[in-house]
Amino acid sequence: MKPKNPPKENIHAVILAGGQGTRFWPLSRRDRPKQFLTILGRESLLQQTVKRLDGLILRRNILIVTYEKQVRAVRKQLPQLERRQILAEPAQRNTAAAIALAAHELIRTNPKAIMVVLPSDHLIGKVRAFHQAIRTACRVAATEGNSVLLGIPPSQPETGFGYLKLSPSGASPYGKDVRVVERFTEKPDLKTAKRFLASGRYAWNAGMFVWRASTFLKNLARFLPSTANALDQIDGRWGKPAGRNLLARIYPRLKKISVDYGVMEKAPRVYAIPRDLGWSDVGSWAAVYETRPKDRRGNALPASHLSLDSRGNYISLSIEGKFVATIGIEDLIVVDTPDALLICRRDRSQEVGRIVEQLKKKRRNELF
Amino acid sequence: MKPKNPPKENIHAVILAGGQGTRFWPLSRRDRPKQFLTILGRESLLQQTVKRLDGLILRRNILIVTYEKQVRAVRKQLPQLERRQILAEPAQRNTAAAIALAAHELIRTNPKAIMVVLPSDHLIGKVRAFHQAIRTACRVAATEGNSVLLGIPPSQPETGFGYLKLSPSGASPYGKDVRVVERFTEKPDLKTAKRFLASGRYAWNAGMFVWRASTFLKNLARFLPSTANALDQIDGRWGKPAGRNLLARIYPRLKKISVDYGVMEKAPRVYAIPRDLGWSDVGSWAAVYETRPKDRRGNALPASHLSLDSRGNYISLSIEGKFVATIGIEDLIVVDTPDALLICRRDRSQEVGRIVEQLKKKRRNELF
Repeated sequence: MKPKNPPKENIHAVILAGGQGTRFWPLSRRDRPKQFLTILGRESLLQQTVKRLDGLILRRNILIVTYEKQVRAVRKQLPQLERRQILAEPAQRNTAAAIALAAHELIRTNPKAIMVVLPSDHLIGKVRAFHQAIRTACRVAATEGNSVLLGIPPSQPETGFGYLKLSPSGASPYGKDVRVVERFTEKPDLKTAKRFLASGRYAWNAGMFVWRASTFLKNLARFLPSTANALDQIDGRWGKPAGRNLLARIYPRLKKISVDYGVMEKAPRVYAIPRDLGWSDVGSWAAVYETRPKDRRGNALPASHLSLDSRGNYISLSIEGKFVATIGIEDLIVVDTPDALLICRRDRSQEVGRIVEQLKKKRRNELF
Repeated sequence: MKPKNPPKENIHAVILAGGQGTRFWPLSRRDRPKQFLTILGRESLLQQTVKRLDGLILRRNILIVTYEKQVRAVRKQLPQLERRQILAEPAQRNTAAAIALAAHELIRTNPKAIMVVLPSDHLIGKVRAFHQAIRTACRVAATEGNSVLLGIPPSQPETGFGYLKLSPSGASPYGKDVRVVERFTEKPDLKTAKRFLASGRYAWNAGMFVWRASTFLKNLARFLPSTANALDQIDGRWGKPAGRNLLARIYPRLKKISVDYGVMEKAPRVYAIPRDLGWSDVGSWAAVYETRPKDRRGNALPASHLSLDSRGNYISLSIEGKFVATIGIEDLIVVDTPDALLICRRDRSQEVGRIVEQLKKKRRNELF
């Protein structure tokens, strides 16, 4: 069975840009989360996410969903988009709510809309492979009732990711590239993760989903009815001032749950396309270090530096032209901003969130 | 033989404040050397040096010798002194020249002047012991021809200091506290330093000298005649505009040599008073770390910090109110300034000068 490519005008990107990370403190702050940072190259992760769609999805079919306090930052970073292409969430309620909002927005103007849901803060090194995988996903998702995920073949026994258990190749009706998802497992322990890796039957869930807006809303109504029913109150008022006012009251009370937990784990007819995309969720400063060019001693340092006998360090200075000197240091993460400095062992950069938690407790609001 | 105390009006402090250290980079710069920094407590080392003389030397008898480009900084830090109490060197020519300049200045107005020569950038914890040692030194130095040094009983085999070999107790005519200096040894190797320490016959040369101005000028004429003769050209014009103009031409060509090498090692009748003064030459960031109060994990951190599992670190932030967070780091020196950041293993902070040398080579004049 070889499904046809759906028409391009029906394919819409939904980029989730409302997140609020703490793992890139002190560079990331409440009002400047990871997707807006230029930690990898000259463009922000959000800008790279949009650029990556060139040739895949029509520019006018790109929709950014973001927290209303971040709309200004999105517009500044993406001046090529029209205001209508930025959908403001009245509160931060995780991905199930954000995708539901986008589905209503799309179906209102295009009942045949296929949604390509993408995180705004990941890295994809292999753009051609990504385009091919999305095109395949769109063909499968064109059939009402199908949900498709991109999966990443695991390279190490990560305990921080979600895993998809895949059917044997050949078990799906869509050819060997498209597998049936048999089970979701969130953040396994190390032993389980090692078993998954060894079995060859698992892929990482990269948070990229493709489905018809109509399919998603049906699954939402079935598996997360509280959210579905709340949003259905808006009914004929979507896109109108009355609808926006109602949404502002409804949205902050929606269940705060991810689309994986809330919908996908229970949904029928879920497929995955496992593919090496040169993908990274860039989940910590150490992950940023991994992606950067390095000198012969494994240091990723700012342009203006002097380094004596130092190895394996990542140093980021946000003040233009500031100079750094190192003597004899190894495997450190150093992030300097005008009002805060972080110095961290590189193998402990996943603990940066603990600093932000403590700043919150101490009400040092100026610092996070 | 019990010499009498000389009258207080004849005792003059000569504080050498023209130095140009590189070891406290990036906080110290060409125009802001160590003596002006508040790295130890709220007052600078220069201010502490002056305050330490309260009750010992009349305020009007304090003379600061400094490089002319640093006069403004001295006046700002020591507003209690009159302009005439700051002597400007037209160039930086090391201590023999600076002390010769001061000796001429003093003898011109007080032929009986006794000079107490002091560095401006050392730490002395035991002020009473220091006062007692200086009083003893002044009694011995009142006799024309005598030179007196304060000596520090060594606590470890330092290879960076000069050592004084002392006569056995009882060999000097001035009682058991005053010893004859039998030999000078600059910066011995480690084996020699260990032998010196074990013998009990050596003291560190702390760079504090007491003598009559007339004695010093006689020794200068005998052992460093080029400097003596050059300055003698000024003759009756000391303190007059013509003298100042002549000095500006003569001084930059004086031999660049320390008073130890140039005069003291050859001079007759040199005595030392060895005494524990709680002294430190504060010769590196690691030495500053040693003197600071620490938390229970041995960290000396700024007021505004969060520290997870970090030990033995010294962190100095020169931006008021800036925050620092550390995770898992050990035994580091971190010094942050608006335009430069240093991160250094604590046991290698004596290598900071290498950074400054390289900045000089690269002509990064804005950075040193």
